Amino acid sequence: MPNAPINLNADLGEGFGPWTMGDDEAMLDIVNSANIACGGHAGDPETMRRTVRLAKARGVSIGAHPSYPDLQGFGRRAMALTPAELEGLIAFQVGALAGIASLETARVTHVKPHGALNNLACIDRGVADTLCRAIRAIDRNLILLAPAASQLLDAGRAAGLPVVEEIFADRAYLPDGQLVPRARPDAMIHGAEACLEHTLSMLEAGALIAVDGTRIAASIGSICVHGDSPGAVGIARHLRQELGTRGYRFLELPKISAG
Amino acid sequence: MPNAPINLNADLGEGFGPWTMGDDEAMLDIVNSANIACGGHAGDPETMRRTVRLAKARGVSIGAHPSYPDLQGFGRRAMALTPAELEGLIAFQVGALAGIASLETARVTHVKPHGALNNLACIDRGVADTLCRAIRAIDRNLILLAPAASQLLDAGRAAGLPVVEEIFADRAYLPDGQLVPRARPDAMIHGAEACLEHTLSMLEAGALIAVDGTRIAASIGSICVHGDSPGAVGIARHLRQELGTRGYRFLELPKISAG
Amino acid sequence: MPNAPINLNADLGEGFGPWTMGDDEAMLDIVNSANIACGGHAGDPETMRRTVRLAKARGVSIGAHPSYPDLQGFGRRAMALTPAELEGLIAFQVGALAGIASLETARVTHVKPHGALNNLACIDRGVADTLCRAIRAIDRNLILLAPAASQLLDAGRAAGLPVVEEIFADRAYLPDGQLVPRARPDAMIHGAEACLEHTLSMLEAGALIAVDGTRIAASIGSICVHGDSPGAVGIARHLRQELGTRGYRFLELPKISAG
Amino acid sequence: MPNAPINLNADLGEGFGPWTMGDDEAMLDIVNSANIACGGHAGDPETMRRTVRLAKARGVSIGAHPSYPDLQGFGRRAMALTPAELEGLIAFQVGALAGIASLETARVTHVKPHGALNNLACIDRGVADTLCRAIRAIDRNLILLAPAASQLLDAGRAAGLPVVEEIFADRAYLPDGQLVPRARPDAMIHGAEACLEHTLSMLEAGALIAVDGTRIAASIGSICVHGDSPGAVGIARHLRQELGTRGYRFLELPKISAG
Repeated sequence: MPNAPINLNADLGEGFGPWTMGDDEAMLDIVNSANIACGGHAGDPETMRRTVRLAKARGVSIGAHPSYPDLQGFGRRAMALTPAELEGLIAFQVGALAGIASLETARVTHVKPHGALNNLACIDRGVADTLCRAIRAIDRNLILLAPAASQLLDAGRAAGLPVVEEIFADRAYLPDGQLVPRARPDAMIHGAEACLEHTLSMLEAGALIAVDGTRIAASIGSICVHGDSPGAVGIARHLRQELGTRGYRFLELPKISAG
Repeated sequence: MPNAPINLNADLGEGFGPWTMGDDEAMLDIVNSANIACGGHAGDPETMRRTVRLAKARGVSIGAHPSYPDLQGFGRRAMALTPAELEGLIAFQVGALAGIASLETARVTHVKPHGALNNLACIDRGVADTLCRAIRAIDRNLILLAPAASQLLDAGRAAGLPVVEEIFADRAYLPDGQLVPRARPDAMIHGAEACLEHTLSMLEAGALIAVDGTRIAASIGSICVHGDSPGAVGIARHLRQELGTRGYRFLELPKISAG
Repeated sequence: MPNAPINLNADLGEGFGPWTMGDDEAMLDIVNSANIACGGHAGDPETMRRTVRLAKARGVSIGAHPSYPDLQGFGRRAMALTPAELEGLIAFQVGALAGIASLETARVTHVKPHGALNNLACIDRGVADTLCRAIRAIDRNLILLAPAASQLLDAGRAAGLPVVEEIFADRAYLPDGQLVPRARPDAMIHGAEACLEHTLSMLEAGALIAVDGTRIAASIGSICVHGDSPGAVGIARHLRQELGTRGYRFLELPKISAG
Repeated sequence: MPNAPINLNADLGEGFGPWTMGDDEAMLDIVNSANIACGGHAGDPETMRRTVRLAKARGVSIGAHPSYPDLQGFGRRAMALTPAELEGLIAFQVGALAGIASLETARVTHVKPHGALNNLACIDRGVADTLCRAIRAIDRNLILLAPAASQLLDAGRAAGLPVVEEIFADRAYLPDGQLVPRARPDAMIHGAEACLEHTLSMLEAGALIAVDGTRIAASIGSICVHGDSPGAVGIARHLRQELGTRGYRFLELPKISAG
């Protein structure tokens, strides 16, 4: 699809205090939008600011990546929170990143929930509605970056938020559009070529393609790539290169959303 | 001074999770501006939101009360932070409260540092400059609420921030304008009448009046009252009543600042 | 039952940093054993030490009250933890209290899980087994204080731990021995007389007595009383007085367990 | 000095939650004693337990490495704590590690303060006395691992604790026995050969040797090596090899102390 606009996003700034995770600088040379941890599962003020600065310097758009408040569990452990607690969590963390971004005269333009919170919002419409209500209260122009074919996506649309649908370059899908759970042997797509092929086939089909071939129509605006390992950076780089060769144009989320 | 405008402010929202401190509702019926803890020394998202809601319902203006990140020590223990860490602390906490406030369609209009951080900023111009730089980066219209005759006040002016000078109704002053340390027996002014007299004499003099009679000219815009004990609420109420009787008009900080 | 030994226990030391909860000193004059928060849902080192000191001065035996690591939620929000994480939680918190107790030449002699963790352990045998395995690894002489008719109790017995069965003076029971959920209007027993009657009837029956009259045999060794409100302290005092009048002898948990 | 006993120690277990630091397994193959972070500057229960298990499997003795409670600052930022707060910090963290160790049927046999707390205890006898009082209260057989020629060492001796004096393989000394501050260009000894030479010269002299040649007699029992970078692991390995070749015998701290 010549000239088709697309976005690459990654979860970044996932260090805390003295600890780092992944190679943020390498990833920021590849992606167009960064989901930045904001104190829930990672991200102290210093780490947040450095990530914002690095992103801004490269024209990478900035998003908040709010999470259950659980550094130890990296936001991957489900917590039983009330709707009011969920709203507070979102507003506190998105606001905190917005504050930090202002130190670098940068702006937060999108929100993507992290980890167990994102997983829950993808299958529980009540939780998804709560998150979207909070995001809209903060700023109704904040873009919601949500998995294609998820309850979260539907909730974002219903709330009137600008939404962008994302797919995962290295994850296989179930027939209902959910990710194959990590515990299953076929959860991950391995290797740069396979990830590229997986991604291209979905982009060209305009649909999620599940492990059994099922297609679920999707208006794919962004591809989530990972950068936690040296191999992952290589996969992301390959994807960018090959999609570019095929005529895809890489844009930050605000341009995708406005598109 | 008939019709003279004045502001009453108090530190509120200083609970955390299941714990409360002071009688916030009683104080919010008395003061015009609330300094709300934002996660540093107190204040989880729920507590912050409830305090914002109660303040807004009474027309009380909302300020952030950022602190060293130290719940256990309630922000009263000095920490050796770098300028970058101080900037991050301010931006994170003020931003977090702004996020929470948006859930209640309310706005943060002032900032007042808390505890050991405020104490340090009052005597260390470098620290004061750093805090003001961060506040200005977030929003140059944020009012700095600073003790009269402090380095923090000077730094706020130099940074071009709107500033309001505050005095303490129940604290005695040293000849250099600093508070008499709490360890000294004459640190506190006891009783509602004495606090009123102490406050009135400074308002009428347009100056801090130290324990030895020294006067330091001040353009007093706000009076800080405390509410941690039932007695303190009574003192605050008495102050409001008696100042009202004498013709003082009570205004929120944005109106004092615009004044 | 003249001369029947019984224990009164309460959850204490549930402050954190500047915040307090309940009237620990009043309760420590009434109970024989204290379940002391150890950093999970409450309890910084200072609060823990003060509570240990107050307990020791009154001959009240000391227990650890470990919890999900969640100050903000006070340990009342369920968290999805692995067995290894549960073991680590127990060992860390019980060990921390043991360390603090040593500053007062006191010893931790029992363990009672707190809040959502206790609730889960009462109905999930796997979780209960995990907690008991951790307790036994720390010290196989630690007494497990567990609700009568619970999976936790069974797990403690199976692990070979000394166990004491507790009932709640102010909570109604379901026919299966679980507590009536707080959401139901009949969850709580109200008033000192009703609590005494509820407790006496179960002690005399040697059984839990559910709301529908169902009896579940129990070897009741301890009664849990609450102290979060002035009324609660009064109920606890009444219970102690009236049980004493009826010939019950009050003992610390180690003596009950040895009994 | 043929057959002279010596100990190698390193700071390990300095990850938290999803984050790691250094190559603990490589270092545990080299050192005889591990100073394990216990929740202050690093170290959640999982990380602590894994480090204990790896150490035990190699016959490496286990010590607690307590710190100011400051994950974000990694315990490197000074905090103004009272003596009671310092005692509580030590007891809580050492106790927590002891609890975790019990899950692996291992024991904590020494204590070494971390970072800014260690630095302060080396020059402030009051702080040093406080730390030693807390350690002795927990267990008077706990070995204090303290820098040679420090106030902390003197305090340990005065408290009647078993003490072992350590030197640093890669740090230069001032004429008063303090470390050359990191800000100075000559603070670090660079390269495996230079570190070996530095260490050997001090071992053979039975003294610290400062940058200006000043000698301060010391009864050196342990050498602290670092493992935060691949280079550091190589230095530690070289040191162990070359000291071995020269006839030094490597022992865990309890054997050095019993020596």
